[in-house]
Amino acid sequence: MGINDAIAELCAVLGEGVTLSKSELTAHGRSETHFPLTPPDAVAYPRSTEDVMQIVSICARHKCPVVGWGAGTSLEGQAQAVRGGICVDFQHMNRVLNIRPGDQDVTVQPGVTREALNEELRATGLFFPVDPGANASIGGMASTRASGTTAVRYGTMRDSVLALEVVSATGEVIRTGTRARKSSAGYDLTGLFVGSEGTLGLITELTLRLQGTPEAVSSAVCAFASVNDAVAATMDAIQMGLPLARIELMDSDSVIAVNSYSNSKLPVKPHLLLEFHGTEATVADQSAIFGQIAAEHEGQGFSWATKTEDRNALWAMRHNAYHAILQLRPGARAIVTDICVPISRLAEAVEITRSDLAHSNLTGPILGHVGDGNFHAILLIDETDADEVARAKAASNRMVELALSLGGTSSGEHGIGLGKLEYMAQEHGGAWAVMGTLKRALDPDNIMNPGKLVPPAN
Amino acid sequence: MGINDAIAELCAVLGEGVTLSKSELTAHGRSETHFPLTPPDAVAYPRSTEDVMQIVSICARHKCPVVGWGAGTSLEGQAQAVRGGICVDFQHMNRVLNIRPGDQDVTVQPGVTREALNEELRATGLFFPVDPGANASIGGMASTRASGTTAVRYGTMRDSVLALEVVSATGEVIRTGTRARKSSAGYDLTGLFVGSEGTLGLITELTLRLQGTPEAVSSAVCAFASVNDAVAATMDAIQMGLPLARIELMDSDSVIAVNSYSNSKLPVKPHLLLEFHGTEATVADQSAIFGQIAAEHEGQGFSWATKTEDRNALWAMRHNAYHAILQLRPGARAIVTDICVPISRLAEAVEITRSDLAHSNLTGPILGHVGDGNFHAILLIDETDADEVARAKAASNRMVELALSLGGTSSGEHGIGLGKLEYMAQEHGGAWAVMGTLKRALDPDNIMNPGKLVPPAN
Repeated sequence: MGINDAIAELCAVLGEGVTLSKSELTAHGRSETHFPLTPPDAVAYPRSTEDVMQIVSICARHKCPVVGWGAGTSLEGQAQAVRGGICVDFQHMNRVLNIRPGDQDVTVQPGVTREALNEELRATGLFFPVDPGANASIGGMASTRASGTTAVRYGTMRDSVLALEVVSATGEVIRTGTRARKSSAGYDLTGLFVGSEGTLGLITELTLRLQGTPEAVSSAVCAFASVNDAVAATMDAIQMGLPLARIELMDSDSVIAVNSYSNSKLPVKPHLLLEFHGTEATVADQSAIFGQIAAEHEGQGFSWATKTEDRNALWAMRHNAYHAILQLRPGARAIVTDICVPISRLAEAVEITRSDLAHSNLTGPILGHVGDGNFHAILLIDETDADEVARAKAASNRMVELALSLGGTSSGEHGIGLGKLEYMAQEHGGAWAVMGTLKRALDPDNIMNPGKLVPPAN
Repeated sequence: MGINDAIAELCAVLGEGVTLSKSELTAHGRSETHFPLTPPDAVAYPRSTEDVMQIVSICARHKCPVVGWGAGTSLEGQAQAVRGGICVDFQHMNRVLNIRPGDQDVTVQPGVTREALNEELRATGLFFPVDPGANASIGGMASTRASGTTAVRYGTMRDSVLALEVVSATGEVIRTGTRARKSSAGYDLTGLFVGSEGTLGLITELTLRLQGTPEAVSSAVCAFASVNDAVAATMDAIQMGLPLARIELMDSDSVIAVNSYSNSKLPVKPHLLLEFHGTEATVADQSAIFGQIAAEHEGQGFSWATKTEDRNALWAMRHNAYHAILQLRPGARAIVTDICVPISRLAEAVEITRSDLAHSNLTGPILGHVGDGNFHAILLIDETDADEVARAKAASNRMVELALSLGGTSSGEHGIGLGKLEYMAQEHGGAWAVMGTLKRALDPDNIMNPGKLVPPAN
């Protein structure tokens, strides 16, 4: 069988760089959102691009599946080896290779995490802005086209990756893009690989745009009488062009969860959490303008802080919100929805969703990167309750239908993986077949993360 | 023969929507930069996506080349029918379909020009920022991944296109993307078609991001003792994060040309032309900061203006610079270089280029969108002088080698077309073959703008 032959050859070539240990296979078969355990047949730990080339070449020869692994923080089961094969764990390829402050860019290996990268950047006055919450690997973030709290200001991984080194499905290495800030020289292969979830090749190096650390940062928090008011305030701020660095919604169920988990004392009401980046004067100005907008929408207790520890506590609370919500119902599995709609339809989308979840008798606190029109309902379900599972699936399906009917997307930032595959046909129509054509062209033997993202092969 | 059969069928189906008139064929065989005349065999004028589907379906059946045509302003011969076939002129598909101020987006047909679009947007307080100078069609700008003077602030067509409707090489219509501001739902097909120069399909509809019209705009002009000083000032401004809306370099040869053409009276020295967008206070602040930077680099006569007519005169002069330069040597053909390098290497790149052109005894005024690291030398050559042509080609080649050695690209914004095809292998290495694989997958019969962008078929 192809997989066993590939493993034998890999062991001969990589020695201790491959493991078949049960515990490691199991660790690489799990995911954050508890899709069924699907361990790979072996885990390889490359230390260089050459190692990755060897691994993929061997797998290509034996038609053995290859699945990339970063920090294991993906939410849709992107890295699960649903057809077995070799998991390629990039933990040893985690170096920051070249920081170029004058060009505000950096070249890194895929296994570095965003927190480690920002730690290394600290002395430069620059930072890497994309912040999905989890301490994900940069390679994984690129593969999922991740974004998060700061995308409203600094964009997503699509906007932040200048160039890639990629090992293709045949084991060859290619470079996409240059360090130029713009280029019209041919197809945007960088953009094609970003978000492709390892189905077209493995990313072995990334060149990223950096941002200047703002002179001043302030954060703010504001309670609202209703989610509608909070969303309406968000829409006003975005439509007037206020350059928010973050604007996050937590509904009152989420507030209950974070109060309990983070020992905070927010009033049990929907909240917006904000951050402003600029000079002392502009952040004060922006905070004041948002305060006025909030007041027009019955905002309560608007307060803003510039002290680092206050800000850190606020964002730690927000970053822990997903885990806090899981604690609301210990043992529950989460179905995390991820729709994103045009900002003018956001209030409507959140309202309909909340009402649907209530009618469906489901627990689903809502968190949102509302400046982008993106929000998540974290549906907490008892996996042994078939009726509840079915109601949650149906509600999730309706959210996607709603998003598409409003001009939006089934996935704002978590990607497709196993969790959203069923929505691809509905969202993309004939364009999904085009994705399949591209996949077959670049990976004719379907070895790169098979079973993900594109239509099933005939 | 396939082309004649296709034309017969097209005439039967489209009637007056197809022409074989010599003058129209000739008009669609020319380009701005005077590549040899290559008229198509017929020109079709679709009025709807359905028309385009019919045209492409018929051509697909007869394996007849199909070349899109917008406003005819491309500089690299992108729209020239080098293998004959059908030119598809989008002039009748020029409507603005839906302006959505609340979402700051707009849906348009490909034939609308950027000036017509901005005219229609005038009352909304929004504008479409991408400004390549020429009054190009939006479909053409997307196909070439155009940018121009404002990319330093607002990005390029890559950043400005949210979604596309495309007629594929088989005549099917697909939609790429949604109106959501971000998405992780599958391969970025929008990004793949933007910049593909009509080689993968024809764009029949575009949804674009818009920007809020700034409350205040000021422009500034400053002379420098040397190009090096001007570029050094640019690098300082970019590296300190000054949010410039435009920053354009004209060397002294360019200044001579525009003085003569636009009847302006700039001192014959290298100049930077700038624009600031913001509030009254912030544009004044930015202008003052740039004034200080300029002074540190021996800037002379720094002055800034907020009066609309002054600003318009300045940018009209800049937009006419290419034509002004052509007038320096009537009858000359232009080879327009278009390299883009990381900002830290910009001074070096301009310096080496100027010295190379001087040593090569070539006239090549330099214009640059220097905030992006992108600049053009407009090489004026007498086509009948074989030695001069050879020297110009060699100098152009060396500029590309220089750009690549500095981490840059052969084309910042003009695209590949006929003019830069020879540099693709050098710039992309193995990635160029990947582009060829994608092309063959989506257009196996090579009917979409054949002879462009990808490696020649075997």
